[in-house]
Amino acid sequence: MPGVLCGVDIGGTKCSIALIDEDGKVLDKIYTCAHVSESEEGMVSMVAGHVKEILQRNQMRQSDLPAIGVGCAGHIRHNDGVIITTSNLEGFNNYPLRDALQSHFEVPVILDNDANAQAYGEYKFGAGQGYNDMIFVTISTGIGAGIVINGKLYRGMTGTAGEFGHTIVEPDSELVCSCGNRGCLMACACGMALPYLFEKKLKEGKKTKLKMPSNFNISKINGQTLKKGLDMDDPLSKEVISDSAYYVGIGLYNLFQTLNPPLIVLGGGLTNWGEFYLERIKETFYDLARDMLFDPIEITLSDIVGDAGVIGAAALTLE
Amino acid sequence: MPGVLCGVDIGGTKCSIALIDEDGKVLDKIYTCAHVSESEEGMVSMVAGHVKEILQRNQMRQSDLPAIGVGCAGHIRHNDGVIITTSNLEGFNNYPLRDALQSHFEVPVILDNDANAQAYGEYKFGAGQGYNDMIFVTISTGIGAGIVINGKLYRGMTGTAGEFGHTIVEPDSELVCSCGNRGCLMACACGMALPYLFEKKLKEGKKTKLKMPSNFNISKINGQTLKKGLDMDDPLSKEVISDSAYYVGIGLYNLFQTLNPPLIVLGGGLTNWGEFYLERIKETFYDLARDMLFDPIEITLSDIVGDAGVIGAAALTLE
Repeated sequence: MPGVLCGVDIGGTKCSIALIDEDGKVLDKIYTCAHVSESEEGMVSMVAGHVKEILQRNQMRQSDLPAIGVGCAGHIRHNDGVIITTSNLEGFNNYPLRDALQSHFEVPVILDNDANAQAYGEYKFGAGQGYNDMIFVTISTGIGAGIVINGKLYRGMTGTAGEFGHTIVEPDSELVCSCGNRGCLMACACGMALPYLFEKKLKEGKKTKLKMPSNFNISKINGQTLKKGLDMDDPLSKEVISDSAYYVGIGLYNLFQTLNPPLIVLGGGLTNWGEFYLERIKETFYDLARDMLFDPIEITLSDIVGDAGVIGAAALTLE
Repeated sequence: MPGVLCGVDIGGTKCSIALIDEDGKVLDKIYTCAHVSESEEGMVSMVAGHVKEILQRNQMRQSDLPAIGVGCAGHIRHNDGVIITTSNLEGFNNYPLRDALQSHFEVPVILDNDANAQAYGEYKFGAGQGYNDMIFVTISTGIGAGIVINGKLYRGMTGTAGEFGHTIVEPDSELVCSCGNRGCLMACACGMALPYLFEKKLKEGKKTKLKMPSNFNISKINGQTLKKGLDMDDPLSKEVISDSAYYVGIGLYNLFQTLNPPLIVLGGGLTNWGEFYLERIKETFYDLARDMLFDPIEITLSDIVGDAGVIGAAALTLE
């Protein structure tokens, strides 16, 4: 099968291994949640086994692949393929994941963080096709970005370029990020901010149409809860979504002023809020950019749904 | 004279034309302030005349130069060499400056904005030597940046990448930028913020050692005023300088998270505040970056003093 690529997406809940064709379509996929209870070595062996299994059942050899692409959440030093830190998997601090995987394969293993992988997937197979430069922003529990410049991922000195979820957008904010800083974009705008924003509006006396039984735990409010609210036209849910959009809009505006990209693609769980969310993000963006925008910028939702992680990981082998 | 370069720095007050050698040293320079009262065409003729004059008096021909590099403040569309807007010169909106200059010369004219030019000057002749990637940030009346990636200026789609003075760092700030937005980095941190910050501290009852005659106009407070204050150990001046440093520190931290560069070089008028300023900028930066900094980043003051603009303009011809 010419042009077939192999990607591995190692997440905090799910690990997917897939073969994709030259148009970025998934041909076959294995996924497991068992990797989270494995040791570092155990997980590496499990992943390697699944890659070999998916190749075998598709009558492919390793040598049919240019490389094996691996995307993983966390801070990854790209040069030596070491996971410096990850909050999604136990252990794996300063763990040489690439070398550990490489010892199982003859073809090169390419490791990058999940936002970079998804960015390259968008560039090769998604909304980024035809562009030289683009930025992919993922908005879910956290916020991250992958930056494509002149057809290549721009990684910076360590490989952590694109960690723009940690940029400060409100130094005096009441919201503290998991990184410890106050007023990061991700503290204000994404998964971790939602319960706070929801509760704040309740305390202001705003009403919600969402069912709130007496034992309702506000800290469990997440993107899906608010999606339900949005679908039932709940004003409070819509306000929280709009607040998130406001900060994301500021973040995208800051990216625009810094990097002046022609395209920003948004992915990640919270983009399931769809057009309502996108329109409000754009509203803030264009309110700020106004007459400083000399060429049209495209801001769009990813159309790679569901398998974005593993498609992105496979795309890394084309860089 | 082999390796000699020619640069033109068109500023809002001063216009410099210089020849520099292959080490970035100025060999000869003409400067004028008369350009500001000229029409667009008049200024172009004046600049072209001075370039020809400086070549002639150094027994050089145009063909001895690889190109003529021109740096100019404002939003410049790099592809077609058009000044889109500039607040430093009257007129010059949507003015094809590069083509106008080009019509006077046989060798190519390369036009870019002053921050990009200075960034490339630092990369070639200053603190950026030996790096592949770096960011130059100029802090004066406004704040701008030039981004060098893999030895080339990264300009973005229009050519306005690096306008990070307009990134929002405090959406609810009382300070409004010349761009119209609230809480831009440049509204909070640089020349335009100084009178506000100074007056605020006076109103809080803080004392200054600076002489304040009854007709003293606080709106005239600028970097030089505060430099005097700093030199006489004036606590109020030092507080204002520290406030500026705080916001610049946030801005550099945001650049770090977004681009993860190995080097940030600071230039522009306010860096005359020297080590006191730099140390406070770094304090904020490292307070925020902490354990998210996996490799050392160099943050330093430019050592190209005085002629940075024209040296940078000349360096553009080496890109």
